[in-house]
Amino acid sequence: MDAVRAAVVGTGLIGGSVLLRLVEAGVPVRGWDPDPDTRRYGRERGVDFPDDLARTVRDAGVVFLAGPLVTLPATVAEVAAAAPVDCVLTDVGSTKSAVAVAARRHGLTGRFVPGHPMAGTERAGLAAARPELLRGATWVLCPDQPADLGPFRRLARLLMDVFAARVTPMSPEAHDEAAALASHVPHVLARALAGAAGRSPVRDSVRALAAGSFRDGTRVAGTPSRRTADMLLGNRAAVLEQLTAVRAYLDELAAAVEADDAPVLTRLLAEARALRVALPAPPDRPALPARPGRPALTDVTGPDAAPEDVAAVAERLSFSAPDGAEELAWLLGLGASGGWLTGCEPGLGTVTWTARRLRPPDRSPVDRSPVDPVRDAGSPPSPGGPARAAEPGQKVT
Amino acid sequence: MDAVRAAVVGTGLIGGSVLLRLVEAGVPVRGWDPDPDTRRYGRERGVDFPDDLARTVRDAGVVFLAGPLVTLPATVAEVAAAAPVDCVLTDVGSTKSAVAVAARRHGLTGRFVPGHPMAGTERAGLAAARPELLRGATWVLCPDQPADLGPFRRLARLLMDVFAARVTPMSPEAHDEAAALASHVPHVLARALAGAAGRSPVRDSVRALAAGSFRDGTRVAGTPSRRTADMLLGNRAAVLEQLTAVRAYLDELAAAVEADDAPVLTRLLAEARALRVALPAPPDRPALPARPGRPALTDVTGPDAAPEDVAAVAERLSFSAPDGAEELAWLLGLGASGGWLTGCEPGLGTVTWTARRLRPPDRSPVDRSPVDPVRDAGSPPSPGGPARAAEPGQKVT
Repeated sequence: MDAVRAAVVGTGLIGGSVLLRLVEAGVPVRGWDPDPDTRRYGRERGVDFPDDLARTVRDAGVVFLAGPLVTLPATVAEVAAAAPVDCVLTDVGSTKSAVAVAARRHGLTGRFVPGHPMAGTERAGLAAARPELLRGATWVLCPDQPADLGPFRRLARLLMDVFAARVTPMSPEAHDEAAALASHVPHVLARALAGAAGRSPVRDSVRALAAGSFRDGTRVAGTPSRRTADMLLGNRAAVLEQLTAVRAYLDELAAAVEADDAPVLTRLLAEARALRVALPAPPDRPALPARPGRPALTDVTGPDAAPEDVAAVAERLSFSAPDGAEELAWLLGLGASGGWLTGCEPGLGTVTWTARRLRPPDRSPVDRSPVDPVRDAGSPPSPGGPARAAEPGQKVT
Repeated sequence: MDAVRAAVVGTGLIGGSVLLRLVEAGVPVRGWDPDPDTRRYGRERGVDFPDDLARTVRDAGVVFLAGPLVTLPATVAEVAAAAPVDCVLTDVGSTKSAVAVAARRHGLTGRFVPGHPMAGTERAGLAAARPELLRGATWVLCPDQPADLGPFRRLARLLMDVFAARVTPMSPEAHDEAAALASHVPHVLARALAGAAGRSPVRDSVRALAAGSFRDGTRVAGTPSRRTADMLLGNRAAVLEQLTAVRAYLDELAAAVEADDAPVLTRLLAEARALRVALPAPPDRPALPARPGRPALTDVTGPDAAPEDVAAVAERLSFSAPDGAEELAWLLGLGASGGWLTGCEPGLGTVTWTARRLRPPDRSPVDRSPVDPVRDAGSPPSPGGPARAAEPGQKVT
């Protein structure tokens, strides 16, 4: 990926942030956007923004497609026709199956690697873009055929190098299923809460009383509505399936409240809490670079581990490059188990990946947080003093 | 409230934060907690922590009761018996009807003012307490009888002076109804999302992909489960009623996704968004002090207004102190309309309140955020350039 030229097509919030980070990292890059004002705005900030899409991508080694979801299938074909034949194409859309199908239909398997950085804000537009927006983000990439892993490897290295990304390999279908629950359904819940508050007879006192739980729970309800609608309808089946699962849990919680059943309610709450406290640390620090020479499958959870390693175990595996089947299977298995790549070392006839894989969460329904009502007013039992963080390293805001 | 002595009974997260702020503000204050380790921990930090509850409150002018919800009815009676007869008692529990009923039963109307600061974290214990936790918080107080407004006024002034609180007067019943939607139901939704993720076959990839929407939407699922169960069961009827309203909106959203109906889905999303962007600015800055001499009902939304004033209109009203009926009606109406007190000026036979009252949100279902899919990739139409914050002053994280 040395001296690669890059291009970003569609420079809104995400594309613009990709562009700004590439500029910051010293990668030669051009931007393009269908909106002339955005191109002018980009030029005024010193970025090369040709008016012509074909000229933007004609000598690129990698192109990021970052327009709205519904435009991607058409854009990928147009860009592929204009870009060099060995150029790697990727996108940043929030659903992956539809664009992967479109790319296969256009015969682009092996050139197009569907992607999705799990980051964003409820804002939009190049002016809202920031080079650090995607820093350390989990970034799904969808490798396809075993024989076509070259573009995937090149792109993964670029993302790790430039964005300190946690590159998570997944099939488009596995991505869409997990993203429905990890991202799309939370948008639905946020709108349901905000929408019900807007229709409530006590709407204005709800607004005044809106505490952290309401503000956090509805933050993404500020996202432009068309963008959210495209996302939900672009992943319809998986969203409906995961909504059903969430509503089933909601029904159980409501039934326990209705029945005034404190033990059952507390058990359900604690079961949910176990998942929350088992989330990997948020990527406010980028993953550490892979350390060459570290033995395979080393557990790095000792005192020497970085905070974000607490829930993850390091792996290191080498593959013979010509046969990608075993490598592809390992990559997809890694993503399915909540793992991500931390490094790629190409060798003579081999490729070596380093990675981290999440530990399973504590499935025990026992809430280890204080439950004794008397003690809950004060400090926990000694030893350790009254410090009572729910979880080491857990973010408290 | 000059030279008032204060006491805090139950020094966990909230009580501890009240205590630390009172210390910081130079108010003489004693703490008490049923846990000996907490009392020792407090003493080691230089705070007066008697072992005896009666001694803690015997010369207090105001006592904050901050133990777990289920202990409050008993604690309020015990403290009232030990404190001076003109001491104002208040609590910080997240539901108000039950404790108000208990206080009336103990004949404490006129001494006990139920309270609820709308702030917190998912942590617990004195070591997690911070003096700034409640700074600028919306703080509900429940005045009761018109003849007994004196303690309410004294307490409101203390909270405004020491905590820069947005004191919101409400009846216990109005508080519980609004808090169910503004705080309690968001906890249920967070647990439903986290709980469904924990049971999902793709649990581990959901953990890895958990983006801002999932993390924000489940943050409060890290709260100690017993505390959350007590909160929900302590406000059972209102929680169930508001859950029904949220599930109805959720059903409408799901039906629109199921029907693949983009116009209806977008309209529902935009309706919800209108409420979200109409939340008052979060209290990361305390409310400005009331400005004496400002004429009544002055609109302060001009260029001269502070950011948190954008959604609120200032009011100033004087009442003859002896008859509290009109004053009480105004106070409760203020809270019901999403207003809060900003100052209290006692005079000769009069009391003058300054306040802010929320404007109604824009009820238009039109989402003024960018909806054009082409433009959504880039910048908005001129004029104004490509800056595209969803709402002026909206927090973006």
